[in-house]
Amino acid sequence: MSVNPPSLDAPLQVPGFRIGTASCGVKSADLKGKRTDLTMIVADVDCHVAASFTQNRLRAACVDLGEQTVQQHGQNIRAIVANSGNANAGTGVREGEWAQMMITSAAKALRVFPEQVLSASTGVIGTPFPIDRIVEGLEEAASTESDWQAAANAIRTTDTFAKYASRSVGDFTITGISKGSGMIHPNMATMLAFIATDFPINQTELQAVLKRVVNLSFNSISVDGDTSTNDTVYVLSSGLGLGHEAVENTTAFEAALTELCIELAQLIVRDGEGVSKFVTIHVEGASSTDEARHVARCIAVSPLVKTAFAGSDANWGRIIAAAGNAGVAFEAGDISLRCDDVVMMESGNLHADYRDADGMAVFAQAEFSITLNIAMGNASATVWTGDFTHEYITINAEYRT
Amino acid sequence: MSVNPPSLDAPLQVPGFRIGTASCGVKSADLKGKRTDLTMIVADVDCHVAASFTQNRLRAACVDLGEQTVQQHGQNIRAIVANSGNANAGTGVREGEWAQMMITSAAKALRVFPEQVLSASTGVIGTPFPIDRIVEGLEEAASTESDWQAAANAIRTTDTFAKYASRSVGDFTITGISKGSGMIHPNMATMLAFIATDFPINQTELQAVLKRVVNLSFNSISVDGDTSTNDTVYVLSSGLGLGHEAVENTTAFEAALTELCIELAQLIVRDGEGVSKFVTIHVEGASSTDEARHVARCIAVSPLVKTAFAGSDANWGRIIAAAGNAGVAFEAGDISLRCDDVVMMESGNLHADYRDADGMAVFAQAEFSITLNIAMGNASATVWTGDFTHEYITINAEYRT
Repeated sequence: MSVNPPSLDAPLQVPGFRIGTASCGVKSADLKGKRTDLTMIVADVDCHVAASFTQNRLRAACVDLGEQTVQQHGQNIRAIVANSGNANAGTGVREGEWAQMMITSAAKALRVFPEQVLSASTGVIGTPFPIDRIVEGLEEAASTESDWQAAANAIRTTDTFAKYASRSVGDFTITGISKGSGMIHPNMATMLAFIATDFPINQTELQAVLKRVVNLSFNSISVDGDTSTNDTVYVLSSGLGLGHEAVENTTAFEAALTELCIELAQLIVRDGEGVSKFVTIHVEGASSTDEARHVARCIAVSPLVKTAFAGSDANWGRIIAAAGNAGVAFEAGDISLRCDDVVMMESGNLHADYRDADGMAVFAQAEFSITLNIAMGNASATVWTGDFTHEYITINAEYRT
Repeated sequence: MSVNPPSLDAPLQVPGFRIGTASCGVKSADLKGKRTDLTMIVADVDCHVAASFTQNRLRAACVDLGEQTVQQHGQNIRAIVANSGNANAGTGVREGEWAQMMITSAAKALRVFPEQVLSASTGVIGTPFPIDRIVEGLEEAASTESDWQAAANAIRTTDTFAKYASRSVGDFTITGISKGSGMIHPNMATMLAFIATDFPINQTELQAVLKRVVNLSFNSISVDGDTSTNDTVYVLSSGLGLGHEAVENTTAFEAALTELCIELAQLIVRDGEGVSKFVTIHVEGASSTDEARHVARCIAVSPLVKTAFAGSDANWGRIIAAAGNAGVAFEAGDISLRCDDVVMMESGNLHADYRDADGMAVFAQAEFSITLNIAMGNASATVWTGDFTHEYITINAEYRT
């Protein structure tokens, strides 16, 4: 089940990057050759990298290693390698050894240094990592010529479609892939996104841009309700032929990267497990953007709200109660609420013209928006979320049984 | 559906208190006479009161009025009146007028002052309050002689059984009723508990005791995931014949009140909508009790964890990932995890003897415990929760449709 999965344009090639994929049977040996589960994004030149990692206290070893590499060698990155089918997490000391072996083997196959390789894993937590099959797969992937669509396919776990997007900025290209996740894909919990560009920008600036972009995109879907042990976003910039200092205005680059990441993030929500609705939550009139986003998230993750969405039930009392639960100061007597253009509350009172049937008609749609004004200031934020359906319970309660 | 609902002993009468109930058709006029929906707990003498209210920013008018009354007249309380079927919330200025009329009418019927009356409402949010039928019902309830079991019945909304408990402390009695609630009963979201005692204790001390007790009981069930607009706990102490200064050690009273409130809170979890499991979450080795309780709550409210419970799936990766999401500092390499007596992780590593079949056998039970040690200190906390089942989705997605 997914909500209006768009027919995606083919992703644009990014000059200076090539892709390798393989099918090595990560999840189980008998899947070898049947579905791709290993991907490599390889740069011809040293790239500057920006990264965003899970805030969860329990992080997989590949995340810890990746963070170290970004800090120490973040201007010399040559490759990202990623597998689906096993998160290589929750198994203690061995996971660190396996993660390091994956990187060393990839470096050897690609003839670069291990400190130039970033890795990511996604799949079941707590299952031993099949490092022998991974090493074989890395050798195979290094010798293939694949493409971004294939890469997006190879990082899928329970995703029902491959997720990719591209943007052009002047003569430059940005292409990204994503998978997952989060609250919506709990068992295969990881959200991953890998983005490559030839836009010239140095690491410090790229990291600052990514931080703002992630807040407006991947941190604005209901993933945050349950961060996983492996969530990772990497952006590689090759600056191919022009080096790593900006020769163009980065404003246009940031705008394009924001659009691209919002598109990749929304694709994750549209492909959420069991999701039958795609709902946009706007919170406006807040004292700060952070407070607006926090209230919007509290609405987006509330099981009460998500089941009302699933039932096409305009039970708006649940929405304001979830907002009131956010711990953000506002006055009940001042708030206004509408869904699409139907006003439910105005300045704390039931709107005189509101009819339940009008709200129900909006909630019956596959896509709609909720707008809450908390009348405390001028800041606003938008979050995208799905609903909680029977299929969600089926997938997550019966996954292993 | 409920998990092992115990056969409850009849509640003990509390000297100096009498009960009135009525069926006035709060939810709809045609239910009048068919099910009780109004209750009064009336004291023969002025009582000292302690209270605990919802932390939600959006509070019903009856909660605001109750808090004012407790502050200004908390040593002269004569009655609690409560209705089910309508929360009298989310309708703006009118809800304040209706809440005040309910109190004034009750005071008139009981021949006491309005400032001696506390009120509570539970039911649907955002629907006009049928004040005329409520006023009629209050007159009827004031003239009836009912009992605590009937009172527990009259405050039920979607509860499948009435919830009450009693304790004796020396020559004194404590009896309480509860309903709800919280995350588990979203549409009828309110958790209510009313407790009466003739134990002599003054208001200041009673309030201090209640604060500690609520943390260990009502705040230790997964209700906190979504506080409602109306959550209220009231404790009335009549000090009948002995006045309001403690003549006995309050330690025994606090212990008895704690036991009673834990029993009432656990009954709420056992009667949670769609709940098929009753799970005890212990977090130990924390730096503080607050941190231990916060981690335990994060596990208890995680949809990933609750669906794994529903599926009898010992998918423990979800439990540690939810704990890691709590924002509490601990090291992945130090934690230990077990379910009942089956050890899954020890000091950050998979336990050598752990077999998935052993975990699955524990999770297949209707009741079991999870113990997580985060190895940061000596504090611990316990939280009780249920699971997320198909029936939960059915009840909450299809409630109004």
